[in-house]
Amino acid sequence: MLVNQQQYRTIWASVCDGLHTVHIIDQTRLPHVFEVVPIYHFDQMIAAIKTMQVRGAPLIGAAAAYGLALAMQEDASDISLCNAVHHLIQSRPTAVNLAWAVQRVRQVILPLPLQKRFQAAWKEAALICDEDVILNQAIGLHGLSMIQQKQQSHTIHILTHCNAGWLATVDFGTALAPIYAAHNAGVDVHVWVSETRPRNQGASLTAWELSQHGVPHTVISDNAAGHLMQQGRVDMVIVGADRVTAKGDVCNKIGTYLKALAAADARQQGHEVPFYAAVPSPSIDWAIENGVGHIEIEERHADELAWMVGRLASGEIASVRVLPEGTKVENPAFDVTPARLVTGIITEHGIFAPHELKGIQQKIKNV
Amino acid sequence: MLVNQQQYRTIWASVCDGLHTVHIIDQTRLPHVFEVVPIYHFDQMIAAIKTMQVRGAPLIGAAAAYGLALAMQEDASDISLCNAVHHLIQSRPTAVNLAWAVQRVRQVILPLPLQKRFQAAWKEAALICDEDVILNQAIGLHGLSMIQQKQQSHTIHILTHCNAGWLATVDFGTALAPIYAAHNAGVDVHVWVSETRPRNQGASLTAWELSQHGVPHTVISDNAAGHLMQQGRVDMVIVGADRVTAKGDVCNKIGTYLKALAAADARQQGHEVPFYAAVPSPSIDWAIENGVGHIEIEERHADELAWMVGRLASGEIASVRVLPEGTKVENPAFDVTPARLVTGIITEHGIFAPHELKGIQQKIKNV
Repeated sequence: MLVNQQQYRTIWASVCDGLHTVHIIDQTRLPHVFEVVPIYHFDQMIAAIKTMQVRGAPLIGAAAAYGLALAMQEDASDISLCNAVHHLIQSRPTAVNLAWAVQRVRQVILPLPLQKRFQAAWKEAALICDEDVILNQAIGLHGLSMIQQKQQSHTIHILTHCNAGWLATVDFGTALAPIYAAHNAGVDVHVWVSETRPRNQGASLTAWELSQHGVPHTVISDNAAGHLMQQGRVDMVIVGADRVTAKGDVCNKIGTYLKALAAADARQQGHEVPFYAAVPSPSIDWAIENGVGHIEIEERHADELAWMVGRLASGEIASVRVLPEGTKVENPAFDVTPARLVTGIITEHGIFAPHELKGIQQKIKNV
Repeated sequence: MLVNQQQYRTIWASVCDGLHTVHIIDQTRLPHVFEVVPIYHFDQMIAAIKTMQVRGAPLIGAAAAYGLALAMQEDASDISLCNAVHHLIQSRPTAVNLAWAVQRVRQVILPLPLQKRFQAAWKEAALICDEDVILNQAIGLHGLSMIQQKQQSHTIHILTHCNAGWLATVDFGTALAPIYAAHNAGVDVHVWVSETRPRNQGASLTAWELSQHGVPHTVISDNAAGHLMQQGRVDMVIVGADRVTAKGDVCNKIGTYLKALAAADARQQGHEVPFYAAVPSPSIDWAIENGVGHIEIEERHADELAWMVGRLASGEIASVRVLPEGTKVENPAFDVTPARLVTGIITEHGIFAPHELKGIQQKIKNV
């Protein structure tokens, strides 16, 4: 998508004089600084995933695939492969795409002689990236049809949480793919962007990328989402997901569950506020039925809540501590929205009610 | 309550060599700086209310009462009185205590000759402050009984939102009064403090005052409240309210509605998570039945969401901009939790289910 009128993906590879480089956008510095960071080594990629320079389930899958390739460049032995797979999967425990992408690359290279593993892994990572782009475009088109069915004379107000835009994927995004598709098709859409504490991905990433693409949007505190739905000022909710279970439970950024509760309550009071999660099929974990209690919820560092990064009036980027010294913090990064609160899952194969998901499992697997 | 082991109220008056001064704690500087600010003039008090140096429904009622007294010191005419009443009521539109306190002082001084108005207003403001303290102590005792009924072998985990502690009142607090009473009575309580964006009153004020008093607590993002309740890690929710309607709708800091939805959903899933609002009876607006759509919701400045105040690593207090430049913001300060989600209203007269509130209206009025 566009950054300063130039097309970018969130991750891309280059080879120059035999030097293999993966390029990523450092998302911890957005929206204040747009910086592309070169990654040459496995350890750098692990650090980029852990510190969330790259984040978003599909993007960390792609980044992990390249990470495994870099590990093979350094040492293509079985022990190195086993270690790299283990460290990558541990780097962020909640998203299913990461493990999916790593296992996919592993299966391709495991039967190969050592000297062919790096090149094969590099190629497979590139394929995962390209496929992600295609999946997201398909999600965008299915979502567009749904939005167009809803369209009346007025602006369509879509609420989203966290960032499931192109920055969370290789390109186009998941939750934002239908929104970009609708905007590009001339549908009058407006996006309510929830700030998404503690890391502010809504305020810093979603607002930034929508602004770069010219999509009308308004940032709200996470707390304001319920009030807006109660007032009938939201036409639908579309979020991404780090993992969707076989029965349609949606594991996504902490706070998603509260938005789903508010949408359900608004529906009970007569407002039509469907709640959708948009995911590529690799984000569906067919091995888990019930998300609540069965998906490991990553607990992140207290500093994410205690400190806030921003720009001083002088223009300098700085961190300020917002909590009293010594305050205890608990910081779960994700929550689970039970399927009973979910209207539909938007996938590259179409939009499915949670109870329909399982019926298409084989279809999705066979494609 | 205690600040650095010394007893304070949030507002108090002094007279020295004929100079009448109201003292307030500047709550915009907490938790980083504890500063007492003297107020000599009506305009200063209006500014203190508008900029939220004083905030919390009971405290702004007390502050407004003193504000009216200061206006009478400057000019005790009927026109001045009328103007001052008007400006005070407009300074924060949502809380009912402010209008209640201003009208109470007005009714006392209106029949009086001009030269007696200032002294009478000053005395009435002091009375309002003392009464608030007594009401809050009574709220604390009723809440304590309820918590003691709940007490089992384990720690009682109470979730609160925003700041309805002693800082929001003259002393003791509303939502936190039962918690202080329980802690002081030796009940093992632990408080989940939600950050409360956009002004962070939970993280900056509630965490600070609980810490000064030694009550165990943990700060969470607003987004995490649903997850904790879903996991059965919250035993009850107690919040304050800026206004409660005659049928028990609770208007409180934005995001309260989402906590109430999560508590109701947890109850439906078999967790016992009652939702209480603790208010002195002046916060009940008998003139309004339905809160949704019938209470004016204050829209505050975009900068509350766009900028964040904190302490740099150097120790200096600074503001950082966290939103991309030019981002549009909507910032409603309150929401309405429908009575159907409310377990009980804790008042100085006892704890009442929403449908019982009206029956005690006369009783409350006659006390």
